[in-house]
Amino acid sequence: MTDRCWDVVTLGETMLRLSPPGAQRLEQAAQFDVYVGGSEANVAVGLARLGMRSAWIGRLPKNPLGRRVSSALSAQGVDVSAVVWADEGRVGIYYLEVAGPPRGSRVVYDRQGSAASELKPEEIDWDLFSRARHFHVSGITAALSASCAETVRQALIEARNRGASTSVDINYRSRLWSPDQARRVLQPLLNVDLVFCTADDARTVFGEQGAPSEVAARLREDWGAKMVVLTLGSEGAVVSGADRLWRGRGHELQTVDRVGAGDAYVAGFLYGYLKGDIDQAVAYAGAMAAWKHTEPGDFCWASATDIEMMLAEEAAEIRR
Amino acid sequence: MTDRCWDVVTLGETMLRLSPPGAQRLEQAAQFDVYVGGSEANVAVGLARLGMRSAWIGRLPKNPLGRRVSSALSAQGVDVSAVVWADEGRVGIYYLEVAGPPRGSRVVYDRQGSAASELKPEEIDWDLFSRARHFHVSGITAALSASCAETVRQALIEARNRGASTSVDINYRSRLWSPDQARRVLQPLLNVDLVFCTADDARTVFGEQGAPSEVAARLREDWGAKMVVLTLGSEGAVVSGADRLWRGRGHELQTVDRVGAGDAYVAGFLYGYLKGDIDQAVAYAGAMAAWKHTEPGDFCWASATDIEMMLAEEAAEIRR
Amino acid sequence: MTDRCWDVVTLGETMLRLSPPGAQRLEQAAQFDVYVGGSEANVAVGLARLGMRSAWIGRLPKNPLGRRVSSALSAQGVDVSAVVWADEGRVGIYYLEVAGPPRGSRVVYDRQGSAASELKPEEIDWDLFSRARHFHVSGITAALSASCAETVRQALIEARNRGASTSVDINYRSRLWSPDQARRVLQPLLNVDLVFCTADDARTVFGEQGAPSEVAARLREDWGAKMVVLTLGSEGAVVSGADRLWRGRGHELQTVDRVGAGDAYVAGFLYGYLKGDIDQAVAYAGAMAAWKHTEPGDFCWASATDIEMMLAEEAAEIRR
Amino acid sequence: MTDRCWDVVTLGETMLRLSPPGAQRLEQAAQFDVYVGGSEANVAVGLARLGMRSAWIGRLPKNPLGRRVSSALSAQGVDVSAVVWADEGRVGIYYLEVAGPPRGSRVVYDRQGSAASELKPEEIDWDLFSRARHFHVSGITAALSASCAETVRQALIEARNRGASTSVDINYRSRLWSPDQARRVLQPLLNVDLVFCTADDARTVFGEQGAPSEVAARLREDWGAKMVVLTLGSEGAVVSGADRLWRGRGHELQTVDRVGAGDAYVAGFLYGYLKGDIDQAVAYAGAMAAWKHTEPGDFCWASATDIEMMLAEEAAEIRR
Amino acid sequence: MTDRCWDVVTLGETMLRLSPPGAQRLEQAAQFDVYVGGSEANVAVGLARLGMRSAWIGRLPKNPLGRRVSSALSAQGVDVSAVVWADEGRVGIYYLEVAGPPRGSRVVYDRQGSAASELKPEEIDWDLFSRARHFHVSGITAALSASCAETVRQALIEARNRGASTSVDINYRSRLWSPDQARRVLQPLLNVDLVFCTADDARTVFGEQGAPSEVAARLREDWGAKMVVLTLGSEGAVVSGADRLWRGRGHELQTVDRVGAGDAYVAGFLYGYLKGDIDQAVAYAGAMAAWKHTEPGDFCWASATDIEMMLAEEAAEIRR
Amino acid sequence: MTDRCWDVVTLGETMLRLSPPGAQRLEQAAQFDVYVGGSEANVAVGLARLGMRSAWIGRLPKNPLGRRVSSALSAQGVDVSAVVWADEGRVGIYYLEVAGPPRGSRVVYDRQGSAASELKPEEIDWDLFSRARHFHVSGITAALSASCAETVRQALIEARNRGASTSVDINYRSRLWSPDQARRVLQPLLNVDLVFCTADDARTVFGEQGAPSEVAARLREDWGAKMVVLTLGSEGAVVSGADRLWRGRGHELQTVDRVGAGDAYVAGFLYGYLKGDIDQAVAYAGAMAAWKHTEPGDFCWASATDIEMMLAEEAAEIRR
Repeated sequence: MTDRCWDVVTLGETMLRLSPPGAQRLEQAAQFDVYVGGSEANVAVGLARLGMRSAWIGRLPKNPLGRRVSSALSAQGVDVSAVVWADEGRVGIYYLEVAGPPRGSRVVYDRQGSAASELKPEEIDWDLFSRARHFHVSGITAALSASCAETVRQALIEARNRGASTSVDINYRSRLWSPDQARRVLQPLLNVDLVFCTADDARTVFGEQGAPSEVAARLREDWGAKMVVLTLGSEGAVVSGADRLWRGRGHELQTVDRVGAGDAYVAGFLYGYLKGDIDQAVAYAGAMAAWKHTEPGDFCWASATDIEMMLAEEAAEIRR
Repeated sequence: MTDRCWDVVTLGETMLRLSPPGAQRLEQAAQFDVYVGGSEANVAVGLARLGMRSAWIGRLPKNPLGRRVSSALSAQGVDVSAVVWADEGRVGIYYLEVAGPPRGSRVVYDRQGSAASELKPEEIDWDLFSRARHFHVSGITAALSASCAETVRQALIEARNRGASTSVDINYRSRLWSPDQARRVLQPLLNVDLVFCTADDARTVFGEQGAPSEVAARLREDWGAKMVVLTLGSEGAVVSGADRLWRGRGHELQTVDRVGAGDAYVAGFLYGYLKGDIDQAVAYAGAMAAWKHTEPGDFCWASATDIEMMLAEEAAEIRR
Repeated sequence: MTDRCWDVVTLGETMLRLSPPGAQRLEQAAQFDVYVGGSEANVAVGLARLGMRSAWIGRLPKNPLGRRVSSALSAQGVDVSAVVWADEGRVGIYYLEVAGPPRGSRVVYDRQGSAASELKPEEIDWDLFSRARHFHVSGITAALSASCAETVRQALIEARNRGASTSVDINYRSRLWSPDQARRVLQPLLNVDLVFCTADDARTVFGEQGAPSEVAARLREDWGAKMVVLTLGSEGAVVSGADRLWRGRGHELQTVDRVGAGDAYVAGFLYGYLKGDIDQAVAYAGAMAAWKHTEPGDFCWASATDIEMMLAEEAAEIRR
Repeated sequence: MTDRCWDVVTLGETMLRLSPPGAQRLEQAAQFDVYVGGSEANVAVGLARLGMRSAWIGRLPKNPLGRRVSSALSAQGVDVSAVVWADEGRVGIYYLEVAGPPRGSRVVYDRQGSAASELKPEEIDWDLFSRARHFHVSGITAALSASCAETVRQALIEARNRGASTSVDINYRSRLWSPDQARRVLQPLLNVDLVFCTADDARTVFGEQGAPSEVAARLREDWGAKMVVLTLGSEGAVVSGADRLWRGRGHELQTVDRVGAGDAYVAGFLYGYLKGDIDQAVAYAGAMAAWKHTEPGDFCWASATDIEMMLAEEAAEIRR
Repeated sequence: MTDRCWDVVTLGETMLRLSPPGAQRLEQAAQFDVYVGGSEANVAVGLARLGMRSAWIGRLPKNPLGRRVSSALSAQGVDVSAVVWADEGRVGIYYLEVAGPPRGSRVVYDRQGSAASELKPEEIDWDLFSRARHFHVSGITAALSASCAETVRQALIEARNRGASTSVDINYRSRLWSPDQARRVLQPLLNVDLVFCTADDARTVFGEQGAPSEVAARLREDWGAKMVVLTLGSEGAVVSGADRLWRGRGHELQTVDRVGAGDAYVAGFLYGYLKGDIDQAVAYAGAMAAWKHTEPGDFCWASATDIEMMLAEEAAEIRR
Repeated sequence: MTDRCWDVVTLGETMLRLSPPGAQRLEQAAQFDVYVGGSEANVAVGLARLGMRSAWIGRLPKNPLGRRVSSALSAQGVDVSAVVWADEGRVGIYYLEVAGPPRGSRVVYDRQGSAASELKPEEIDWDLFSRARHFHVSGITAALSASCAETVRQALIEARNRGASTSVDINYRSRLWSPDQARRVLQPLLNVDLVFCTADDARTVFGEQGAPSEVAARLREDWGAKMVVLTLGSEGAVVSGADRLWRGRGHELQTVDRVGAGDAYVAGFLYGYLKGDIDQAVAYAGAMAAWKHTEPGDFCWASATDIEMMLAEEAAEIRR
């Protein structure tokens, strides 16, 4: 038996996020706040903060921006030793304006031609996957390029072959591909242990709507997944397993920055899932997603103690 | 026929706004955020962002602060070629503390003796008005000094004489004059195409209160205006025309900075008005005013596309 | 008769407060906002801003941080001429993360070994107390060390002996001592003119709960205090006097920073109390506490005019 | 005769510049300062600040970053009405770390795939060139892509055909092309009125070194240019004309940010050149380049008065 | 005999200083740094930091900006109890761009119509002057308005009548008056104990130039002053007394902000002068002026210990 | 044979550094910049950036400040898995004012009672030392407390016993102990492979002065060290080995922040030393120390490529 030194390994693109401070417009701000984020890296960070051993694999250029991305993850305890370093290429950027109604937050992507989008299966040392108990990836990675889609496909196989459980977060992005493209590429990959999907994506990409529990069950069957987590925004989630249904509740919260809340959800779920406790998975997932809304940047900084205290409603407003 | 290269020209004082960042007090902040604003300039900016060709006329000193004001407007596409440059004088300042209840935002004016307040009719090349389809001014300009009031009076005549339509925004400011003074100076000027008035100003300055539609109609008749727009804050507005009444609705919003919302309203209204579509005017006006609340500074940065998307309720919270 | 040149003198520890800007985490922020605060100093500042003559006594090291604390109080008009300057020692720190639900604000204390905690009765020139009409202290000071507790005990006696009225704010801090320790040390000190206590502390430290008016009356009797102010958070307060009960109402507010709200309450109460008007005391106290929530930092910057206008509901949202 | 409403039109790529504040590293800074710059836009801004009518042509995406670039130029009075707006594409970025010895400032380019680099000759309305007295471009534009090189070639012809004088700044960038490529593309374009070249580029790209006056003369002859300005860094410049040589001196200066100094030089030179006064051109050019070193960002903000006062040595350190 | 509770009282205008951070231009900066300063207030602060008891008298409006000025002085230990509070009026502003060669720092004054400039002799309680050992004023105050000039004249008499020594700092400002006006107003006032004058002002205002020691002696005689301090910038100073001459040396320094250096010089000189030690006065004055160059803002924050250590050359670069 | 997965392990205290931005005073700044630093951690970071595998051992409290310290090191690639986590205690602080002459930078230590200073030998798993090729510590660690001194003593033995080479940096701090105490504690520990000592410390602590090469040789003999590196500030260094002397040169530099330059020197030296190349060690050490002066914070961010390019004088001022 191999030593599984990583609880979870994730694979994807991590970008710089540039945001005007406060409620300023991109056209207006004299400075941009700089954050690092990307769906799978956010999951790895969320898990590391909860105390799990996580690793992130991605492709970064050998320049200060590439190093900035990797050190932001290292700082949180995520293992970046398997990163693929490219001699050329750029770090993808997304510009984010945070705003309330009726304006709404807005993203301008500038990720085309990133080093990450040129990741190829042969660049990854698949044997590293034998270190991991679990492998996680999102649909975003598959949307970046044909070689990225192929890398995702192969990664899921390599992980399973080495005895790791696997999960996919649909994470549909309309700026990257159409619903049809997404469904065609993703559907064959979803016979995994765990799929995360929002109710919106279930409808938009897979044409499924109706009672959440039924949607989740249908998707599970269609995909051949062992478990499907259907998230319902502020109303919680339903989890459809082989012979049981779980329901997660929403949480009252005050939003500072909602980006990364879905990834925090995944991290919280995997935390419980890998301990073999789906009840805990559902509870942690919802709490992590709510907690994330209160923190600026893509990462969820909650510790397991934070989440436990929150869930125990011991989180009084000021602890002195 | 003259070439109308400006859709709208506005006339007034534009100031520096100095604000402590966040919720700090003026007595406390180590830095002040610097913005540029003034009622008529805000209208010109709002229109330029919506895609109209607008110009602003005012009086600025030839110093870095005067240039700062003019370049802030240029940056937004407002034509400042008709600005009156003064060898002496200062740029007016207003200090703004933004605060929530029970404190409330607070303005400290420091605009006395500004170059703007010394504007005289003979300093303006009235022939420029033949370039404009519409002229807009607010009661604030008339309140600044006797020569400013005279300039406003003459400007409305010069504009009409050159075939431009005209509008006045009452915009009563209790720090600048009394209700009596305001009524005495403004009332003779209001036989224009369009008057904007808040329900508060209708009551305070003109002693009119009651059902909004009736107030608007009475004011229209008293003033001899073709159309009166009575704004009702978060409850929308009523527009009284010669033979029709329009009603605008309020919008749900989250306030970052409400200064300039009234000017955004005017810009939105003029946008539709100059297209000959009062329904669009009412809808855009309300949307612009709501949108403005989400942006720091005096200007409304919304584009016509933003407003259309907002009105079409396509403004989901994060567009990726 | 002595000249009472101070309306109120307070005694306690004043610290640096280091906070990550915005909603950032302590682990994340590149800069910390620096504020000065401490329960009794906050009360002295609140009173000085309201127009009373106040003084603060504490122990500070002769270094730039000690001077920073004292000059922050001087700037507000608090007399710091009686501060005890120590050749050695540190200024205590508290790190504060401000956050909304479900995260909640969080304090990390780093106040052990502060110069303040080594204050001894013999370091204070008690004759200075003859300058004061009133002496105020909180339970926090008594919790810092044995010598601080002894100083508090003696201060209350010295003040009374010199004809000053006295007040104590329970202000229980679970990070500094246990409920038992707090009760044992504080109970003998509470036969004063005025005790401030939250409903939470009444229950936690003194085991009293039930109808607020009854709790206040029982505590007053048990302690031998002339008057007890029991505060109920957003629901206001009850004040139990020898033969009368007062009730204070809550206020609608939008929270920026709630630290110091309790101290603002005390300042507002003492303002009315020292004018001999308990109705005003109750009204000002509630208004001050609400106002404080809108300001960053520990101090309440409201003037008496601010509070009067607020109470007269003249605080329109933007005063121009 | 056409109305020449532009003194100078320039053509090139304008980028966002992202810089860590102070001397921080890109890997370290929590915020990036945002500036707008690009060789030809910098020249247009420099001229506009000196009081000339300038325009800039480039290709920008229709998004907030594209608008930011264009409004930064508008703010300075540069005419951007001829900008080519693209439905797709990105704004190029360059990351700049400013540092002193022995570290040295460092640029990380992220400009590949920019909307600007896809500019094609057929996208430009060449008739606009009849508005201009002079056309200026740099070798950087030619280096961006084959279609950009072709656009530069054609622009020089179109300008000449419409009676405008023309200038080229060699501006060799080793990150964009090799010396050989640069020479092959640029050499056929240099039979213009005016070429700017650094002594370094003369050596690296054209293999010319030796006495500056001889280098300038040889280059002038080889290229078939009417005038060659050879700049020598802090030691000034030599200008070789058909029958005369001018020498410019260096200036004492304190460097804040040297990026854009070469473009400020060009702007200063063109200012005098277009007034027909080469002596003034040489003097203004050197003064502008020196002045630029004292200002952050790519633009030179000096006015003609500033430069005159500086040259008259009336620029005392503090003018009160 | 009165109790002299103030070592020095000064009289003048104190303003807000608004500066773009770093080397930015006023037209460019998104924020302005806010400082408080004015010649006589700077002297009072310098003295208070050195351990002397100082007071400042001026006229401030009752608004947040007026309070900001007074609390900035209180924070430093300057007594502001004699400030004249005006119901109306503004706080003067000066905008400062700090820059190195060849640009040079630049001030834009916006002080016209300030509350300070309307100070009248009858607003001051001259009996307060009996509290002071010394009275200091600068020529700037006399330049503000006729009533200010009259106030300065009377203040010097009132001070002398109450047994205080007096000093005047010429401090000529070309933006406020002409050399002729300055000489006409100031010359009759200079028969005081101590006059400070720069070599530049001696030449510009009084037409005196040549060997510094001779200039100082001539001025002393002309004015009827007991002592004249002629400052020579980085070359030190000469002091001409009844029967002795002192020479002060310059100091090596690195400039951060030179504004206020002259006032720091005066504070240092008065410190020694009031101890009766002109040698110390000369030494402290030069050291204070040099020290001030290293600190941002108008005030000199050096303590007596700092100056002693500096003079003892014990100021190693990093003291750990 | 053990696998030496660490090239170097270091042991010491790592603190928060709080600095007023720019040249502000601690009493003045509204914000403090937050950095992490400590002599041995700085060495570990410097080595990691150069590409070596380094680890840092210290004692940190389990709170956000403790985690901040550890993640700042993780971010740079330093292994923190051997950190001793304490349930109680504080993170030491040092306040740093950066200033030029004549003021000079100044440190206020607030490190007493830190968790780090309570480190005990029995808390460390000495077997971890078998992972390291080299162990480094500074005299600061020995100065913190008796238990820290004992830990240093034992660490040197444990390292040697496990086959690691060892080095000590004298790093005398007068605020922590007297020269006598330092000599008494350190002298017995210096029979190591490598000792770093400044010429100042050689004189102050060990009474050695004179020609640097002779001082280095005498110290080496006295201490029983194999090699002594005597650093001479801007004049370079001499290295005395068993049978050879090396001389290092100084570098021209522009200082942003000199804190950590000595640690950068050590990192550069160890880099070459562990490659067995003392010439490279001397060259890298001097280059690293110079480079560090240009970067804010305690760490040296140079990569091996940076240093090579610098040494090859290829570091042109702007590389585009």
